[in-house]
Amino acid sequence: MSGVLYGVGLGPGDPDLMTLRAHRLIAGAQVVAYPSLAGGASFARSIAAGVIAKGAREIVMDVPMTVARGPAQAAYDTGAAQISAALDQGDDVVCLCEGDPFFYGSFMYLFARLADKYRVEVVPGVTSITTCAARAGMPLAARNERLTVLPGPLPEAELRARIDGAESVAIMKVGRHLEKIRAVIGDLGLMERAMYIERASLPDEVVCPLSEAPEKAPYFSMILLTKGADPWL
Amino acid sequence: MSGVLYGVGLGPGDPDLMTLRAHRLIAGAQVVAYPSLAGGASFARSIAAGVIAKGAREIVMDVPMTVARGPAQAAYDTGAAQISAALDQGDDVVCLCEGDPFFYGSFMYLFARLADKYRVEVVPGVTSITTCAARAGMPLAARNERLTVLPGPLPEAELRARIDGAESVAIMKVGRHLEKIRAVIGDLGLMERAMYIERASLPDEVVCPLSEAPEKAPYFSMILLTKGADPWL
Repeated sequence: MSGVLYGVGLGPGDPDLMTLRAHRLIAGAQVVAYPSLAGGASFARSIAAGVIAKGAREIVMDVPMTVARGPAQAAYDTGAAQISAALDQGDDVVCLCEGDPFFYGSFMYLFARLADKYRVEVVPGVTSITTCAARAGMPLAARNERLTVLPGPLPEAELRARIDGAESVAIMKVGRHLEKIRAVIGDLGLMERAMYIERASLPDEVVCPLSEAPEKAPYFSMILLTKGADPWL
Repeated sequence: MSGVLYGVGLGPGDPDLMTLRAHRLIAGAQVVAYPSLAGGASFARSIAAGVIAKGAREIVMDVPMTVARGPAQAAYDTGAAQISAALDQGDDVVCLCEGDPFFYGSFMYLFARLADKYRVEVVPGVTSITTCAARAGMPLAARNERLTVLPGPLPEAELRARIDGAESVAIMKVGRHLEKIRAVIGDLGLMERAMYIERASLPDEVVCPLSEAPEKAPYFSMILLTKGADPWL
């Protein structure tokens, strides 16, 4: 009997925001797998560090950050082959994913490679979007309001068109796109509605109005724009 | 010293998808508060039932389901007054919220009434959106893809305009709007990309292609549409 592949969302960073199911699966895992970026530390592993059992085998997928797809695809191919070998031996494999596995998560690439051949269970996690909203004290959407989620790397004209006329907007992966996004929001006259959140739920979290955001944003940063939801008083 | 008001997301329904922080706060709470709809049972309380301490005081907000806003506003006013009284006595109050408190959650109405006067901490929870994606095996968004979240009660013309040209779409609160939404998706030629999910993560969960969805949908139902994300193989 093959093992089961678990794609486990770890939440935004604070280990306390992991689900009970994620905690139990990780604590009981004999094999864990996770990506690390360009030879650096793995954020996913750091969230789960206090839970991974001593002696668990760790499959690390070192994903290079290149514009060309080939090197990253090769890293996922290699990782999928190592995971397959463990599953074929009958071991379950718990794949660690920051946030939620199916929401801008790298687990999708393993799912695409392995879901046809093995039993896979995806365990959803708390996303950065609702964590940022909680930390900024900004309700995202009520009643019949719409929410638009946009990645910061989109071209300026597309960001402008998608933000204009939207209700609540969450802009993910701000990073080096901060200046472009700030200019668009300023041009649209929405600056006073925008909050900037960096590394939500972590000890070095930053939460401030976008107008006061730092010059440089890390990859794990977000901008939230809301209409200032009707508080329904 | 006043107590602290916690708005705690419980996740989509399976108590195992509660966060560690939610679990600890609820287990330690001497006062919990939650809404129930129109005199019925409280879904939020049912998720937390196994965790609430014996002897905890329970503040129930019975929210009538009327089109007019007044009766529901009055229920939140009364609930906020009861919660205030407990906070003023120095008790912490843990408010139970299905899903995430700031994502279509009733906690926003208490937040609007109490956040100026008391210390409030919002604990994010797993949303139904990523839970439905996990259960349907449908990755929601990767790389620079957009996600649009729409409530099912929106007018047909608006749903059509927002779905047409979107990438991934999550339609919440399907309920009695199922036929309208199904017609729009059919007209747009997107039926084969759409999944229907009802009561995700609960024992009586339903997951099927939208084309095979039942005639009647409960309030806690969702439709997910994805482009069939590039699996990046």
